[in-house]
Amino acid sequence: MDFTMYDTLLQLPLFQGLCQNDLTEIVGKVRLHFSKVKAGKRIITQGDSCDRLVFLIKGGLMSEMKDGQGLYVWNEYFGEPFVAEPYSLFGMRTDYTASYLTTSDADLFSIDKNYILPELGKYPIFQLNYLNIISNRAQVFRHRLLSGNAHSLEQRMIHFFLCHSERPSGQKLLKIKMEDFAWLLNDTRLSVSRALNELQSKELLVLRRKEIEIPDMAALVAYRERLLPENK
Amino acid sequence: MDFTMYDTLLQLPLFQGLCQNDLTEIVGKVRLHFSKVKAGKRIITQGDSCDRLVFLIKGGLMSEMKDGQGLYVWNEYFGEPFVAEPYSLFGMRTDYTASYLTTSDADLFSIDKNYILPELGKYPIFQLNYLNIISNRAQVFRHRLLSGNAHSLEQRMIHFFLCHSERPSGQKLLKIKMEDFAWLLNDTRLSVSRALNELQSKELLVLRRKEIEIPDMAALVAYRERLLPENK
Repeated sequence: MDFTMYDTLLQLPLFQGLCQNDLTEIVGKVRLHFSKVKAGKRIITQGDSCDRLVFLIKGGLMSEMKDGQGLYVWNEYFGEPFVAEPYSLFGMRTDYTASYLTTSDADLFSIDKNYILPELGKYPIFQLNYLNIISNRAQVFRHRLLSGNAHSLEQRMIHFFLCHSERPSGQKLLKIKMEDFAWLLNDTRLSVSRALNELQSKELLVLRRKEIEIPDMAALVAYRERLLPENK
Repeated sequence: MDFTMYDTLLQLPLFQGLCQNDLTEIVGKVRLHFSKVKAGKRIITQGDSCDRLVFLIKGGLMSEMKDGQGLYVWNEYFGEPFVAEPYSLFGMRTDYTASYLTTSDADLFSIDKNYILPELGKYPIFQLNYLNIISNRAQVFRHRLLSGNAHSLEQRMIHFFLCHSERPSGQKLLKIKMEDFAWLLNDTRLSVSRALNELQSKELLVLRRKEIEIPDMAALVAYRERLLPENK
C-alpha cells in the first residue's frame, strides 16, 4: 500500500486512528472496490438495499431524496471525504433513504457488508469509530426531534431544512411548489412566500421557480440561533 | 453461572444470540454491577454523563425528561427487559437525555463503558446487536423527522407524543400547561383543548389538571395511521 492510499483512508472518519500496519492488513484481507465515475452518474438509488459502505474519496456527490407523498425533492451536496448513510447498513430500515449522483468526475470505493464485522470489526478503533458515528447520528436526529416545536414561520422553515440535512452546512436545494411547501409548514401560501423572500433579501436563500436554493446551510442555522432567544 | 442468570441475560437484546460459553466467559471477565433498588428511587439523573449501560432485569422504570425551556415534563414507563439510552454511550452528546426512577422494587445491573468495547466488543454477535440497536434508533428518529409535517392538529399532537417516545407503545405522561402545549403546537388554546377532549372521548387520552396521560401509545399510533390517508 502506498503512502497516498494510506493517507486517503485515514481521511475517512471510519478509519481514523488506525495505524499503518492495521491498514495494510485490512487492505490485504478486505476487498475494497475502487472505481472512477464520470460526472452526472447515479451510483446509488433511493430505496435500494444498503449492503455496502460507499466512500467518496475525490470529487463531488449530490444526494436526492424524494418524499413519500411525491411533494418535493431534497438535494444535498457533498465533497470528499464522504460515506453514504453508514446508519443504513444495520438495523431494521436498511434501504437507502436517498439516491446519490456524482457532480464531478469522482473516485469512490466500497466495502461489502460481509466484510464489515468479520474483518473490520476486529479492530477496536474501527468499532469505536463506527459506534461513535452512528450514535452521533441518533443523538443529532433525536435532538432535532425535540427542538422543532412552535417558533415563527421563519424558524419552522429553517427547522424543516435542517431536518432534511445530513450535514448542517453546505449547499442544499429543495424542489417544491409554493402551495405544497405552505401545506407542509401548516401556513398560508402568502405567509410562506413572504418569509422566503425575507430570507432571500438576507442572502440566506435563492428563490427560483419551484426551487429554493440554500447556498450555505451553516449561515441559515447561525441566523436561526440568533433568533432563538426571542422564543417563549 | 446458573441457568436463571443465563436466561436473564439472553432476554436482553444486546446479548441475544450469544451462546452459554460466551456468556460464562463474559461474566468471568466483565464486572456486572447487580443491584436491588426500592420503588421510587432515582437511578439516573438527566444531564449526567452516560458512562455505563444500565439494564433493568426485573421491575419497572419511569423516565422523566424535562425540556430545555422548562415548559413540560415527559414521563415514559418501561418494564423489563430494558436498557437505558444505549445511544448515549458513544458519540458527541453522551449525557443522559432523561432521568430514570424505579416504579417498583427493581433488579438492575450495569456495565461500565470501559468494558464494552475491550471485552464485549470481542464478540461479533454483541457488536452486531449493538450496531443494530443504535442504527435502528437513528433510522426511527430520522423517519420521524421526515414525517412530521403539516397534518391536522390532532395528528401533529400525536406526532409530538411520538417524537418524545422511546418506545411507540405503553403508558406515557405529559405534564404541561394547556397554554404552553398550544404554543408548542403552534395553535390556539381552544383548538388544542378541543382536540385533546376529542381524543379523550375516544379513550386514547386521559386529561387531568396540567397532565395528559396516554394509557397506550400503540393505540394512539394506530389511530393516527388510520388518519394518514386523509392527508394531502
